[in-house]
Amino acid sequence: MKVIYLDNNATTRTSPEVLVKMLPYFTDFYGNASSIHTFGGSNKHAIEKARGQVATLLNAKPEEIIFTSGGTEGDSTAIFSAVNSYPGKKHIITSAVEHPAVLEVCKFLASHGYRLDIIGVDEYGRFNMDQYKKVLDEDTAIVTTMWANSETGTIFPVKEIAELAHSKGALFHTDAVQAAGKIPTNVKDINADFVSISSHKIHGPKGMGALFVKDGIRFMPFMRGGHQENLRRAGTENVPNIVGFGYAAELALQHLPEYQTQVKPLRDLLEKELLAQIPDTKVNGDRENRLPNTLNMSFGYIEGESILMFLDEEGICASSGSACTTGSLEPSHVLRAMGVPFQFAHGSIRFSLSRFTTLEEINTVIKVLPGIIARLRAISPFKKA
Amino acid sequence: MKVIYLDNNATTRTSPEVLVKMLPYFTDFYGNASSIHTFGGSNKHAIEKARGQVATLLNAKPEEIIFTSGGTEGDSTAIFSAVNSYPGKKHIITSAVEHPAVLEVCKFLASHGYRLDIIGVDEYGRFNMDQYKKVLDEDTAIVTTMWANSETGTIFPVKEIAELAHSKGALFHTDAVQAAGKIPTNVKDINADFVSISSHKIHGPKGMGALFVKDGIRFMPFMRGGHQENLRRAGTENVPNIVGFGYAAELALQHLPEYQTQVKPLRDLLEKELLAQIPDTKVNGDRENRLPNTLNMSFGYIEGESILMFLDEEGICASSGSACTTGSLEPSHVLRAMGVPFQFAHGSIRFSLSRFTTLEEINTVIKVLPGIIARLRAISPFKKA
Repeated sequence: MKVIYLDNNATTRTSPEVLVKMLPYFTDFYGNASSIHTFGGSNKHAIEKARGQVATLLNAKPEEIIFTSGGTEGDSTAIFSAVNSYPGKKHIITSAVEHPAVLEVCKFLASHGYRLDIIGVDEYGRFNMDQYKKVLDEDTAIVTTMWANSETGTIFPVKEIAELAHSKGALFHTDAVQAAGKIPTNVKDINADFVSISSHKIHGPKGMGALFVKDGIRFMPFMRGGHQENLRRAGTENVPNIVGFGYAAELALQHLPEYQTQVKPLRDLLEKELLAQIPDTKVNGDRENRLPNTLNMSFGYIEGESILMFLDEEGICASSGSACTTGSLEPSHVLRAMGVPFQFAHGSIRFSLSRFTTLEEINTVIKVLPGIIARLRAISPFKKA
Repeated sequence: MKVIYLDNNATTRTSPEVLVKMLPYFTDFYGNASSIHTFGGSNKHAIEKARGQVATLLNAKPEEIIFTSGGTEGDSTAIFSAVNSYPGKKHIITSAVEHPAVLEVCKFLASHGYRLDIIGVDEYGRFNMDQYKKVLDEDTAIVTTMWANSETGTIFPVKEIAELAHSKGALFHTDAVQAAGKIPTNVKDINADFVSISSHKIHGPKGMGALFVKDGIRFMPFMRGGHQENLRRAGTENVPNIVGFGYAAELALQHLPEYQTQVKPLRDLLEKELLAQIPDTKVNGDRENRLPNTLNMSFGYIEGESILMFLDEEGICASSGSACTTGSLEPSHVLRAMGVPFQFAHGSIRFSLSRFTTLEEINTVIKVLPGIIARLRAISPFKKA
């Protein structure tokens, strides 16, 4: 069965052309990039080329890019660096809808002597700026909020959040794992201090990411040991993945306009048709200010997991919540923070498209999903009286 | 020019057959292993197969294996887990010849309220057991020493070190990055609590490793966030690399006897011929108890880096010290800890063979190196009067 892959916010297919660039570094140019001999040391050039490609995607300088093992490591690196670099400051701020890679680190710090404020969101998932202004103070070491939400696609006003953070002397980190490659991510424009991104969300290999660290700010490594990455991230350089990530970043920038001209119209078609054909359905997130590829819908009175299983039988991959919280029986923490009512939150599905998604695939979903919802509602114990 | 690669302790070639196993997971089975849909979720089986393969290499249970981004992350995870799990204990013990991934973490903790004892070694690089017994006490949270040294190959008595640690209620971690795949690494036999290994040292892909965590011991994650790895290591599973690492571990175990029957005789031949042909030369490390693939030699009165450059011109890759400390002008911290005199320590070269090293390659080194040393000594300002 041909797979219709609409779970690109969970992970993406590594582009075959990206894989081709990586292959020589496994078996031919396999030397340690930190070695003195030409065979290893010449891999440094490949790494620096990739660093430039990633920097360009973010409008950063190459020397502001640190390669990491992924978004999770980037998030930890930024947050721990801020608090360890400013040991006198004991307050951190995040939002209620962050990825666990940010929330869990903040909660760990909260259990180790830090004051933590978790800023709420409204019913559209929009950041509560008033609450933020009230809690931000000179004791705040770092403010960490995502650029765009993985579940709803809602985009946060990161430029404004960063400006306020700086006005009180706090650093600003944004998890741009979902934003990168889907909307412009100009880190100079928003004036961020740290920005984490992930390779496997932009058709690069898994186990690879980057952290932007603004030139001149205090930094302390998270991964301690060897001299790699200019003493900022220890560990033998993963040359094949760095090369693949670099090229994936170049391709992402090149194809970025397609997210507006091609992906967004398909997402909008899916949304319009499902809303029209299925009663008791709502869209979660800020429809005015959302990633162009993401559609989060609640189908009232049924279970999201049941919907996913029926879709799975048709070869359609979507998700309920984040893959990083799979196994939890709770409804998504993002939808709970938005106050989505129980009977809707449980029946929520995220469709996340990519530039490889076709009209034919979207039409298939539009064709099969209304029947699935109707069948499930017919047997639902929660159905409306 | 054909490369003669004798720097396998720095990194190894990814086996072509390992790469073949990885390839489908980049572009065909690319789903997120934590997703609910069959397309992603079925990758869990591939991960669990690899976990079993890695567990077998260590004689561990599969559930005792956590996949990491490499040896550095494994070392940090073990050490931070121990100190965070036993907040009442404020003492750590390591050795003077550890990899920076261990030493730097220990030094970080020493600057954050921990007492640190760094155990010395003798002129052969052997662990000072008497010093260790004196400093070990009930306040010791963790003892972390390597299984085998990356620079000299010297093997530590990890079973005895572990037994003493346990007698005082301390956990024992060993960095087995260099030992794995070269000598038997039975973690039950030595009774370790944590054992870190790296994929790229055993002909698997870079950016991948594993940490053995003994069943039942207290554990706190280092990489915090998502639910992956049974809540013990957050971050989207790097399926291709996990699959490759698993197969590399299986192959490593299968080819382990060759390190005695094939690699060691080649190493011994190289050692014997160089000692015979080049005056003022000594072997560093414990010749009675050493990795079968490693030869560290000091050539008096000349610079190791100059030797490496001449070797490089012949297509021969070797190293001076660890790739992870490249750029430092200091002689290796390992040789300094062993008390190797200045005029010898600076002229030290590590040859590290693999099961792919041939007699022809070794004979080439035996043929060209004496001439290189003679030429360098002729122009050396340090040469013997």
